[in-house]
Amino acid sequence: MRTYDVAAIGNAIVDILFQADDAFLNRHGIAKGAMTLIDGFRAETLAAQMTGAIEVSGGSAANTTAGIGSFGGHAAFIGKVHEDRLGEVYLEDLKRIGVAFSGAITNEGASTGCSYILVTPDGQRSMNTYLGCAGTLRPQDIDTDIVAKAQILYIEGYLWDQADTKAAIRKAIAAARAAGTKVALTLSDSFCVGRWRQEFRELMASDLDILFANEGEAKALFETQHFDEAFQAMRAWGKTAAITRSEKGSVVVSAGDVHLIDADPIDRLADTTGAGDLFAAGFLFGLSRRLPLARCGQLGSLAAAECIQHLGPRPQQSLRAMAAAAGLV
Amino acid sequence: MRTYDVAAIGNAIVDILFQADDAFLNRHGIAKGAMTLIDGFRAETLAAQMTGAIEVSGGSAANTTAGIGSFGGHAAFIGKVHEDRLGEVYLEDLKRIGVAFSGAITNEGASTGCSYILVTPDGQRSMNTYLGCAGTLRPQDIDTDIVAKAQILYIEGYLWDQADTKAAIRKAIAAARAAGTKVALTLSDSFCVGRWRQEFRELMASDLDILFANEGEAKALFETQHFDEAFQAMRAWGKTAAITRSEKGSVVVSAGDVHLIDADPIDRLADTTGAGDLFAAGFLFGLSRRLPLARCGQLGSLAAAECIQHLGPRPQQSLRAMAAAAGLV
Repeated sequence: MRTYDVAAIGNAIVDILFQADDAFLNRHGIAKGAMTLIDGFRAETLAAQMTGAIEVSGGSAANTTAGIGSFGGHAAFIGKVHEDRLGEVYLEDLKRIGVAFSGAITNEGASTGCSYILVTPDGQRSMNTYLGCAGTLRPQDIDTDIVAKAQILYIEGYLWDQADTKAAIRKAIAAARAAGTKVALTLSDSFCVGRWRQEFRELMASDLDILFANEGEAKALFETQHFDEAFQAMRAWGKTAAITRSEKGSVVVSAGDVHLIDADPIDRLADTTGAGDLFAAGFLFGLSRRLPLARCGQLGSLAAAECIQHLGPRPQQSLRAMAAAAGLV
Repeated sequence: MRTYDVAAIGNAIVDILFQADDAFLNRHGIAKGAMTLIDGFRAETLAAQMTGAIEVSGGSAANTTAGIGSFGGHAAFIGKVHEDRLGEVYLEDLKRIGVAFSGAITNEGASTGCSYILVTPDGQRSMNTYLGCAGTLRPQDIDTDIVAKAQILYIEGYLWDQADTKAAIRKAIAAARAAGTKVALTLSDSFCVGRWRQEFRELMASDLDILFANEGEAKALFETQHFDEAFQAMRAWGKTAAITRSEKGSVVVSAGDVHLIDADPIDRLADTTGAGDLFAAGFLFGLSRRLPLARCGQLGSLAAAECIQHLGPRPQQSLRAMAAAAGLV
């Protein structure tokens, strides 16, 4: 019996959300739909332009743990925050949703990380991330006991961008392998895949059991313009993969199985921030409860649809109640 | 007597220019006005969208040497190309304009670097650079004799992004200091400053004689939103600095001197690609000929104005003839 369904490692990031139009993105040199790492000065420069922005706890893997909590699952989040206002709010938010915090709380160096997220009228989000102390998560911050007590270790691809966090992941993966904990990775962003393609592919060959990607990331991973080629490559891999395709739904594969899952209908697209994270929450919750693969995908669709109909990357309704109403749990 | 007015080190890059609107940038996640490094897959993805693009030799520091050549000056360019079609055209273009090539021509590994540059109707350029072999310029590719034979060594800030090229620069700087060659740096891009601020500032304190920046880069360097504060910091530095401000002209400082140089009038803004590089060409040509500081700035304005009225980053008219007609030389 394991304590946690999922232990997730990721950048602890407070999202600062601001609604803006495409012209704003162009004026400020922001790459639409991407995640761009920025320094403190650039963060201040953007902040000065964003009056009326709202602050909410975010971070890709942490959003996934929040989703698992909302499904009634047991999740732990491993990350690093500073003992500052944002860090305290961040920890409080995890606690409220029933997610255990592991990792580190520091009172030195950089402040708690944040991401300036511009949400355009089409619901797309463009992220400008100041990592702050999140980028300094180190191997000694990883409690291998937490990893060993989880069914699945879930890792954010973004962590590859920093040498410290990459070393921390390697330690967590070794602990997972030793304990029989399954290892899952999300590719995070197609630019991130461009930076770390080779390492991600090596990781697939050596340690991964479960992979999450969206369509652009999957194509970038296998360097193809054709979705079907990326899909065939995922099948050939032979492990479990979930590829999300926005309104086209998702494709889940595992060993010989393939399921094509529809996107859940929505009334209004408000903000895609967190959509992939919440899909992963539903899918991982299903996997950890040994639900059939198609059901795991449906739970992912349900959680993603809830997420994109409001501003912010975490559930505002009980995913457990929604899943029960839909007859999925 | 020195053989070269300027020896410049930079990424040898072929520009692939394509006229596009702001919506194209947003659709493809391109940061307007910035230089973004991309991988080979992303390069192919963009190339597939750019029918009718034109290819011209580019690269920031190489454009500057082309400008110096057009002024009738003597310049050497230190970079790395592959023995492929783009590499051959690149070398031919330097030869035609009378710029000596140093560095390396390789027949192994990555191809000649290129940059997919989107030019929007407002004349702004957004660069997506695949470094190719340019990013592998190594210390052993630096001929210190060339550096010692130049009055000024000119360095592109973009080179800081790769460990190899950074080591190559350090070797060139050491050779310059030993030979009494002045050392100049361009900050290249405000995101580049965000990545390497501390190293650039250390370099100013230790080795630089001349610094080029545009307004955004100068503000980023000193982490201020106020141009005047960046200007005061440049003055306090005490060496020679030229800060370009687009249509607001430029500010040049040297020891106690300050000159405010107007931008040259233009008929039509076509493409800002290379504007800063050509300003540097005029300014460095003037400095190497011991012209008064204000005159150096005027030569910079003249070269930049020629550049931005046509597509492509290198002069299409004789800058020497234009400068003579304007009574500047």
